[in-house]
Amino acid sequence: MTQLKNDRFLRALLREPVDQTPIWVMRQAGRYLPEYRATRAKAGSFMDLCRNPELACEVTLQPLERFELDAAILFSDILTIPDAMGLGLYFTEGEGPRFEHPVRDRSTIEQLRVPDPEDELGYVMDAVRTIRRELDGRVPLIGFSGSPWTLATYMVEGASSKDFARTKGMLYDDPTLLHQLLDTITQSVISYMQAQVNAGAQAVMIFDTWGGSLTPATYQEFSLQYMQRIVEAMPQEHDGRRVPVILFTKGGAQWLESIADTGCDAVGLDWTIELNEARQRIGDRVALQGNLDPSVLYASPDKIRSEVAAALESFGKGSGHVFNLGHGIHQHINPEHVKVLVDSVHELSRPYHA
Amino acid sequence: MTQLKNDRFLRALLREPVDQTPIWVMRQAGRYLPEYRATRAKAGSFMDLCRNPELACEVTLQPLERFELDAAILFSDILTIPDAMGLGLYFTEGEGPRFEHPVRDRSTIEQLRVPDPEDELGYVMDAVRTIRRELDGRVPLIGFSGSPWTLATYMVEGASSKDFARTKGMLYDDPTLLHQLLDTITQSVISYMQAQVNAGAQAVMIFDTWGGSLTPATYQEFSLQYMQRIVEAMPQEHDGRRVPVILFTKGGAQWLESIADTGCDAVGLDWTIELNEARQRIGDRVALQGNLDPSVLYASPDKIRSEVAAALESFGKGSGHVFNLGHGIHQHINPEHVKVLVDSVHELSRPYHA
Repeated sequence: MTQLKNDRFLRALLREPVDQTPIWVMRQAGRYLPEYRATRAKAGSFMDLCRNPELACEVTLQPLERFELDAAILFSDILTIPDAMGLGLYFTEGEGPRFEHPVRDRSTIEQLRVPDPEDELGYVMDAVRTIRRELDGRVPLIGFSGSPWTLATYMVEGASSKDFARTKGMLYDDPTLLHQLLDTITQSVISYMQAQVNAGAQAVMIFDTWGGSLTPATYQEFSLQYMQRIVEAMPQEHDGRRVPVILFTKGGAQWLESIADTGCDAVGLDWTIELNEARQRIGDRVALQGNLDPSVLYASPDKIRSEVAAALESFGKGSGHVFNLGHGIHQHINPEHVKVLVDSVHELSRPYHA
Repeated sequence: MTQLKNDRFLRALLREPVDQTPIWVMRQAGRYLPEYRATRAKAGSFMDLCRNPELACEVTLQPLERFELDAAILFSDILTIPDAMGLGLYFTEGEGPRFEHPVRDRSTIEQLRVPDPEDELGYVMDAVRTIRRELDGRVPLIGFSGSPWTLATYMVEGASSKDFARTKGMLYDDPTLLHQLLDTITQSVISYMQAQVNAGAQAVMIFDTWGGSLTPATYQEFSLQYMQRIVEAMPQEHDGRRVPVILFTKGGAQWLESIADTGCDAVGLDWTIELNEARQRIGDRVALQGNLDPSVLYASPDKIRSEVAAALESFGKGSGHVFNLGHGIHQHINPEHVKVLVDSVHELSRPYHA
């Protein structure tokens, strides 16, 4: 394997010393970039783009050409697993993802099979291999998956949802059935993540987009428990290097301690908590990733710099912080503002690592 | 004024002894009730229903006929104030509220005027007076308003929003302008709430539906600060009785201490925090209202009872708890399940007040 030219991101995740705070941006390969929109138009549908390893690689690398980012993230969707299970993923303009065949009854759930990551999901592994080759060691590549609970909500609702009525109805009325579904999804995520690591992913992140919709008790039982199984099943290292695992529950700031206790390497934070409070509560057990409000990028360059400065000061001295937004970048952000963000993080963080 | 036959709700808000835990349900007059749907069909549009004091009274009282609820809440919308400012509120099927004239620039914001609550909003005060007369002292009547921040998001976006891009863009890029808007809204909410109390509201609640979308610092500056001004401006008592103020920030469980410090009488809780943790953090400074996950009502009567039992045990002994859902009731809930909820709360709570 090629030697990494910039391993700041991996070092920060393992709380090893760095020269400056690393940064990447959730959804950094996305619609705010004109070159992304051009490739997307060439590809056809969003899923056509995900399924084409060459084009998925192209959009993965686009933000790295513009900005001094410290990591690349596989361009894909969080719903590839249920799609590979045969649920028929498609996207409607402005309404987000939908499934042709939602999963709502016992017999459908019992018939679900764990997809073979090198067969039905082979296009993802091909993309990982292609990106690793093209990256040529510039920065590490992050692999990812949706969390079991988050995937379950889409599979049961058949679409995005405001209140998750069907999934939570199942949770309260037939928890055994929901556990069966979550168990199958968890097995699938584990095999998918292991395959991404084997194909070349150097860190992995689990996106629990909807964990924050649960109560404290049901979060533990129906989301965190399954993420912990994934953490425990990940290889301790690959190619002689640890593959860090980042868990991110949007709206999960109240449950940081128990997220950190899963054995993950880093906890992703949305913007509803200050970094210093999070660091104080978790201590140095894990690294933190986040957590600028994505809306800060609507502001002027001066304001972006001052918000970056405040976040760096809030985390304080030492390693263990990967700078990021608290959620994905919005589509109408000016790319020049992302450059200000990335450069400010690097420049202003140096004194904290002196 | 007629003597109240059931003042359990008001007593619990003031942490005075009660015989059993009072309960009401957010959106208790709503689409899950067939009789509501019948009145709504008769009225025309949703706003036609709000603007008709007799029909607004009719739907306000409907859930009290079915269930042993301990409070009535004015049937109205949180967006009556911006509508009265001339923004042109209307509703589209499945997409929620919209404004014909969103408020996005300095000159529009400078021209906004505080509506006269007995003129442009006179239909609301007429509804309050009608409901008080028809209630005839059965239970207290709750008045309400949206919070300044929440109203501002709708006024700036012109519709519901997932990320509040325009409002938060203004927050970061032109905070002075947003403060000017929030100041005008706050003056309007104060005069609206005072008028509701004069018309007969016996407690008031501020719904900060979107406060949870802010960072800790911007929540204080752009939402809580203005709610505090409202709390401070409310009359200490009316007709010889204190008019309790309830503040509810959805997604605000992390900021309970500072919400309690505003001087409000009660803090509304969504379901992302356990009642015992909230009580431990806030102490007995204020009462708590909430916080069953609305999705529990999809489950069987036995499960509903056991979840009620768990919530009551979590709060523990003594007064200071108003039972409620953590957010509005969903439209597809079986009304029989609401009866199970209300009766369980009363029956199972008695030992905690012995």
